[in-house]
Amino acid sequence: MSPPSAASTALSTDHYELTMLQAAIGSGTAGRRSVFELFPRRLPEGRRYGVVAGVGRALDAIEAFRFDDDVLDFLREQEVVDAATLERLAGFSFTGDIWGYPEGEVYFPYSPLLVVEATFAEAVLLETVLLSVYNHDSAIASAASRMTMAAAGRPCIEMGSRRTHEEAATAAARAAYVAGFDATSNLAARQRYGVPTTGTSAHSFTLLHDTERDAFTAQVTSLGVGTTLLVDTYDVAEAVRLGVEVAGPSLGAVRLDSGDLGVLAHQVRRQLDDLGATGTRIVVTSDLDEHAIAALASAPVDGYGVGTQLVTGSGHPTCGFVYKLVAREGEAGAMVPVAKASTDKVSFGGRKHALRRLGADGVAEAEVIGVDVPPPDDGNDRPLLVPLVASGRVVGREPLEAARDRHERSRAELPLAAQMLSRGDPVLETVRL
Amino acid sequence: MSPPSAASTALSTDHYELTMLQAAIGSGTAGRRSVFELFPRRLPEGRRYGVVAGVGRALDAIEAFRFDDDVLDFLREQEVVDAATLERLAGFSFTGDIWGYPEGEVYFPYSPLLVVEATFAEAVLLETVLLSVYNHDSAIASAASRMTMAAAGRPCIEMGSRRTHEEAATAAARAAYVAGFDATSNLAARQRYGVPTTGTSAHSFTLLHDTERDAFTAQVTSLGVGTTLLVDTYDVAEAVRLGVEVAGPSLGAVRLDSGDLGVLAHQVRRQLDDLGATGTRIVVTSDLDEHAIAALASAPVDGYGVGTQLVTGSGHPTCGFVYKLVAREGEAGAMVPVAKASTDKVSFGGRKHALRRLGADGVAEAEVIGVDVPPPDDGNDRPLLVPLVASGRVVGREPLEAARDRHERSRAELPLAAQMLSRGDPVLETVRL
Repeated sequence: MSPPSAASTALSTDHYELTMLQAAIGSGTAGRRSVFELFPRRLPEGRRYGVVAGVGRALDAIEAFRFDDDVLDFLREQEVVDAATLERLAGFSFTGDIWGYPEGEVYFPYSPLLVVEATFAEAVLLETVLLSVYNHDSAIASAASRMTMAAAGRPCIEMGSRRTHEEAATAAARAAYVAGFDATSNLAARQRYGVPTTGTSAHSFTLLHDTERDAFTAQVTSLGVGTTLLVDTYDVAEAVRLGVEVAGPSLGAVRLDSGDLGVLAHQVRRQLDDLGATGTRIVVTSDLDEHAIAALASAPVDGYGVGTQLVTGSGHPTCGFVYKLVAREGEAGAMVPVAKASTDKVSFGGRKHALRRLGADGVAEAEVIGVDVPPPDDGNDRPLLVPLVASGRVVGREPLEAARDRHERSRAELPLAAQMLSRGDPVLETVRL
Repeated sequence: MSPPSAASTALSTDHYELTMLQAAIGSGTAGRRSVFELFPRRLPEGRRYGVVAGVGRALDAIEAFRFDDDVLDFLREQEVVDAATLERLAGFSFTGDIWGYPEGEVYFPYSPLLVVEATFAEAVLLETVLLSVYNHDSAIASAASRMTMAAAGRPCIEMGSRRTHEEAATAAARAAYVAGFDATSNLAARQRYGVPTTGTSAHSFTLLHDTERDAFTAQVTSLGVGTTLLVDTYDVAEAVRLGVEVAGPSLGAVRLDSGDLGVLAHQVRRQLDDLGATGTRIVVTSDLDEHAIAALASAPVDGYGVGTQLVTGSGHPTCGFVYKLVAREGEAGAMVPVAKASTDKVSFGGRKHALRRLGADGVAEAEVIGVDVPPPDDGNDRPLLVPLVASGRVVGREPLEAARDRHERSRAELPLAAQMLSRGDPVLETVRL
């Protein structure tokens, strides 16, 4: 596995972060200790729970957040900020502390997903890149988790790279894996993150050859009888017959990518069984989402390939996380809780702590948020904030498998209503102490 | 402006492209001349037109599509493909020809946005990365175009970086600019593509200071009276009064980020005028989309900052473009049109040509597609396919301003119904000759 990209992330930043820094240097407030919190005000409409993803990528982004010479030259030439600010940026590295929900954990409205404590100067600069990573990756994981739940143990394969930005594609494959997908088509996700990849073939491969027989023969010869043949380029029944003839009854799988997948799956299963190919699997693709997956529960389907709806968060491509200053050093040196006062955008000042309240039966009962002090643990509860960065050093990195395992466990703890795909309220109430 | 990133794009690729290549090498078909077409089967539901964006980024991605040693080592160690395929990949560079709709042009169902002619080996490898770039960037530009049309000349500022993947953010800022946005908050978009950036300040900046007066004073002192003050942290009327007191009547602008923006804008305009700050602009932000922008048409608003809805394509985060083999060399050496036969996914074989049919009054009347031969031009028409890559050399690169200008012209040619934000049919019919 290759190390995280060394490309600087410093310009994945909004203009105003740098100009706020400049103004804060001017007013002597840039060095004030500050606590920022990254949190959702709500879940996407109708969703029962959300899934935290992107933690590992965010840690990579923090380490790569530095102002190299080309970045500084750009900022100087374009007069984005003044000389004093450039000087501060030249030496920048994050030296503060960050706690957060570990990757794969589920979340609810107002869960304090990240608590960033540093000078204002350091903490404000990370605003955009942290939000970008978390808003994207968690949206994908939240959708993916519903899909793997609907699939009820049948493997799900992420195939959506082509329907989203090429770099978002790789992050989406990673997030889907955290939420229980088994593999991806995206090769960069395998190289960077070790996500298993798999692939079948496209209609173009069949059309390239003079006959479907030529195409199947070419694929089986090159990739072995365990390969997956795409059988809907011309006539499905004829292709299934031909596939078993070419590969033998040990043919790995066939893929259906169009038509009424439920009906076709039954027909194809019967045909495969009649041909003696009882072990040949049926993989379906074609605009699947969690509802389509659930609707195929009684069909003889052995795997789901999901594309567009996965990488677009199944109707909710972003989480709406915000990053707010909740406390900062006052004139006397003590920390002061702060919050925006007006109107419709509710924030709560003060440094947050959080735990998942669990019943004696191990079922989750509430998301409990403590302000300034940790909420009391009744013995079964799980603290949700873990150290991610300590004095600027990343301490929260873990293998992706750990996040994947955590997600499976955290989801299993939720009340049964979490399994409902219909619209409804979050399955846990957020209690603020 | 910096050159395009030199990072290889070769693994922004689906696994099956490489295994199809391996199988095609095996069957002796990898070298067959092939024509692939990138096109939409439909517009997003209810949309009147789409906007092509990402052309320049796609050309960068093609140039960066090469298999460096680390990529080859990865593919070898992971046994993704066999030795013969690795050897072919090691020397890969695209040597074929590509024609396409120029950036900023509008499109309709079945518009042949890209025509890629090369060997199967070369053309199939570009499938995922071309689709990723086009599907993302065009989705953003299509939404952005509706927003700038609704804004009717008032400036639109792209502020959505935090709500999407950090690299998608930069591409979104670029695409929005093509579709008429005036600026972005995203600094990387300025560095890479020369998109103008702008910024105001966040609630955190006000909250960092002991008083709102301290914050405004700090901002005006550092950034000048032309700056934009955020006035909704505590009480809007008091903040407006204070802002003019601190900056004087030449205060550049105030930003409203919450509440009933229409009502507030009227109140704030009256207050600013009463204070003599008649030139101070009012910028509104807060979950705007094209409908919210249109609803503010009669309010005294001087600029719109758009975030989430822009970077998520205002309900349509991807375009659903597909990349299909439409013709390939037959046994006798002649090109043979090909298409998938079955069921619900309609494709049309054969190499496409396209023109925009224009009436004598300059108004667009139809999208005319010719199969194998160019459709006849009645004199007013505009051919839509231009050379982008010739024998592997990029020939279609142009300044981003050219794409921006083209979009403005192409949109202006459309029938008036293109300006309707309500759901409806595409404003031009696609005619296949």
